Amino acid sequence: MSSPHGSRLDPWVDSYAARARGMTASEIRALFAVASRPEVVSLAGGMPFVAALPMDAVAELTGRLLRERGSVALQYGSGQGEPVLREQILDVMADTGVRAHPDDVVVTTGSQMALDLVVRVFCDPGDVVLVEAPSYVGALGVLAAYQCDVVHVAMDEEGLRPDALAEAITAVRAAGRRPKLIYTIPSFHNPAGVTQGPLRRQDNLAVAQREGLLLLEDDPYGLLGFDGKVPRALRADDADGVLYLGSFSKTIAAGLRVGWAVAPHGVREKLVLANEAAVLCPSNLTQMIVSDYLGSRDWRSQVATFRDLYRARRDALLEALSALMPPGTTWTVPAGGFYSWVTLPPGLDAKAMLPRAVAALVAYVPGTGFFVDGQGRSQMRLSYCYPDPDRIREGVRRLAGVVESELELATTFGTGSAAWQAFGLQSPGPDLR
Amino acid sequence: MSSPHGSRLDPWVDSYAARARGMTASEIRALFAVASRPEVVSLAGGMPFVAALPMDAVAELTGRLLRERGSVALQYGSGQGEPVLREQILDVMADTGVRAHPDDVVVTTGSQMALDLVVRVFCDPGDVVLVEAPSYVGALGVLAAYQCDVVHVAMDEEGLRPDALAEAITAVRAAGRRPKLIYTIPSFHNPAGVTQGPLRRQDNLAVAQREGLLLLEDDPYGLLGFDGKVPRALRADDADGVLYLGSFSKTIAAGLRVGWAVAPHGVREKLVLANEAAVLCPSNLTQMIVSDYLGSRDWRSQVATFRDLYRARRDALLEALSALMPPGTTWTVPAGGFYSWVTLPPGLDAKAMLPRAVAALVAYVPGTGFFVDGQGRSQMRLSYCYPDPDRIREGVRRLAGVVESELELATTFGTGSAAWQAFGLQSPGPDLR
Repeated sequence: MSSPHGSRLDPWVDSYAARARGMTASEIRALFAVASRPEVVSLAGGMPFVAALPMDAVAELTGRLLRERGSVALQYGSGQGEPVLREQILDVMADTGVRAHPDDVVVTTGSQMALDLVVRVFCDPGDVVLVEAPSYVGALGVLAAYQCDVVHVAMDEEGLRPDALAEAITAVRAAGRRPKLIYTIPSFHNPAGVTQGPLRRQDNLAVAQREGLLLLEDDPYGLLGFDGKVPRALRADDADGVLYLGSFSKTIAAGLRVGWAVAPHGVREKLVLANEAAVLCPSNLTQMIVSDYLGSRDWRSQVATFRDLYRARRDALLEALSALMPPGTTWTVPAGGFYSWVTLPPGLDAKAMLPRAVAALVAYVPGTGFFVDGQGRSQMRLSYCYPDPDRIREGVRRLAGVVESELELATTFGTGSAAWQAFGLQSPGPDLR
Repeated sequence: MSSPHGSRLDPWVDSYAARARGMTASEIRALFAVASRPEVVSLAGGMPFVAALPMDAVAELTGRLLRERGSVALQYGSGQGEPVLREQILDVMADTGVRAHPDDVVVTTGSQMALDLVVRVFCDPGDVVLVEAPSYVGALGVLAAYQCDVVHVAMDEEGLRPDALAEAITAVRAAGRRPKLIYTIPSFHNPAGVTQGPLRRQDNLAVAQREGLLLLEDDPYGLLGFDGKVPRALRADDADGVLYLGSFSKTIAAGLRVGWAVAPHGVREKLVLANEAAVLCPSNLTQMIVSDYLGSRDWRSQVATFRDLYRARRDALLEALSALMPPGTTWTVPAGGFYSWVTLPPGLDAKAMLPRAVAALVAYVPGTGFFVDGQGRSQMRLSYCYPDPDRIREGVRRLAGVVESELELATTFGTGSAAWQAFGLQSPGPDLR
């Protein structure tokens, strides 16, 4: 039968909200597809190495939990999250210096949902959010979904620059625009691999306070510093001015989707209401798995295991980069977390080069995905969290080969992969953009 | 130390988005607090009776899953949901007549998240959504969060009225407003307890098609018809014009937070992007528990167990209402699902009466929570899903007593609980609004 909606490909194309125009496929998303091909060494995705968890112990505590408290674990729960877990989260944050009450904590479906709820609560279309350049792809996605205008603020080897932040705020206000939030990842930055030192944090917090702006501190990697020290959170020094986001995705398991926000009191109430509108409540089962794991296992020692594992992989990456990458390539030296940020020799284009890299069986994320304004063409994010050290070395060897050939091309033709297009070679397919 | 943010209770009160004004505590939310007091018979909450699940079997399959595929279950997954589960969802929907491709399915963090994503993708502030009167509180919450204008459409004993729907659309357009969606729960309605028959469904679908409006079919209770028959979904007769929402919360377990949307092709892509912005991906673990449960257990027989259990509870409710409620009280006779919709004798106010009911140790949801326009003062939703038949009878006995005293008050003073406020009696606290 013929459709009552005509033969157009999408009969609802004129019905979408304005915000749907900001919803476009991210570069991160595509990488799951690439990374899943076993012959490719993926230095692209940010998947934690969950196989290092004591899987039998997790299986056993989950089985027991379902047998003994199944009718709670499988039931609807609180829109704010399980009270016991919210107490335990305070303990998990203790080393960051964050002091709070369990009532200040809102448990969310991963910290991505917390990001979504914060932006939902604060940002009208056209509001300005100050965001490090580069920044987390998932944050840029949320800000686009709520039609925020991202104003990038420069970083240096210590992360967000307070002088640039102050200047950016002044410029936004001078243009008659309203800044609403400052978004920062102070520790082991995704993608930049840098960390704000104690003085840098004080200076950035002082700018936020002076300007009367809420600072959104995203801290998924804080416990994964390779020297075993946990950086002091900005939230530790300002309970009213900083909204802190935490996650169990990197310290326990991403597949549970359990994260949290620690918010000033009035904000917290709004976040709970927004959480209820979005999902009614986060999963009781996955919250209780986290809670039982924290309560029955030596979770700090497991975090130390992850930390050692990621440090060995970081070392493998850095050594391979030093040994193999052509002169003129530079990279950040992460003191924790999952990522190093690589700048290619002048003239090379990481985005245009990606199909060649994938053909050479290595993947990365081109730098442009971490900016809203086209910056980052000569840069890429390399992640060392998932492949083992030998795979990492092999991946860097392949990547170095691709960069070498690009350099030769650039020397011969005056440019890198851009030239290939003149020869009819394909640009990245939709899965790689 | 003194706060740099001054001494105001909420220093960010001027910073919230306009949409945050629509975020107010729902009447459903409050009920968790009331329902959790063991001495109260709660006919209020919509909690499924998950204790009827084969808990040992769920524990065993979950334990095995974590031991054997833990590094997948605990990892990030696809933003659209696990492919195997999406195939199985087609089988779960088979009796509704819905035929689709696994690519048409988007798995979400409960069907509440699907509702949120649909409204996010379609509705600009001020867009009109046509919604049954009364309607699901969680849908009204999402619509408020996205600043939609709800236009209520009258129902009768067969649910949404097509004539009223057509009239409402005409009136909205005549007023120069843009209707975007029609939202309906055709089977075993929450809260009204009514079901659209086959002809009624055809008529409503015809109105949506004629007016070129997307129909959002919310179907969490479709498999819980007491005669064992599954009503044919509206989506079964129009793949392009109907967006179907399903849920495992009532057929397996709410605490897993696994629901889904079946969407027209172009819409589905937008929903996946919105899902990624909101949560990156739904929990792999809870999706895989659902998938293994569907694959290894006789889930249809378990749904039949739930159906029989809820039918017995419905029978207990209806018998007790018939035996105990004073003349002039009426109620709907649900053929499935969790709820009956009760209308009090003229002059009584269910909202004003609620504190007396809680004092008498019985709880319900006042009708006003299910409308945006103040309708429903003489009505209430009674749920029979969670308490056992004896508790249901005891709850109705207490409720009947409260209604009797209200009627006496009304006879003496010409009105019910409204009069109590004149005597200094308290109105409902914030937990009961």
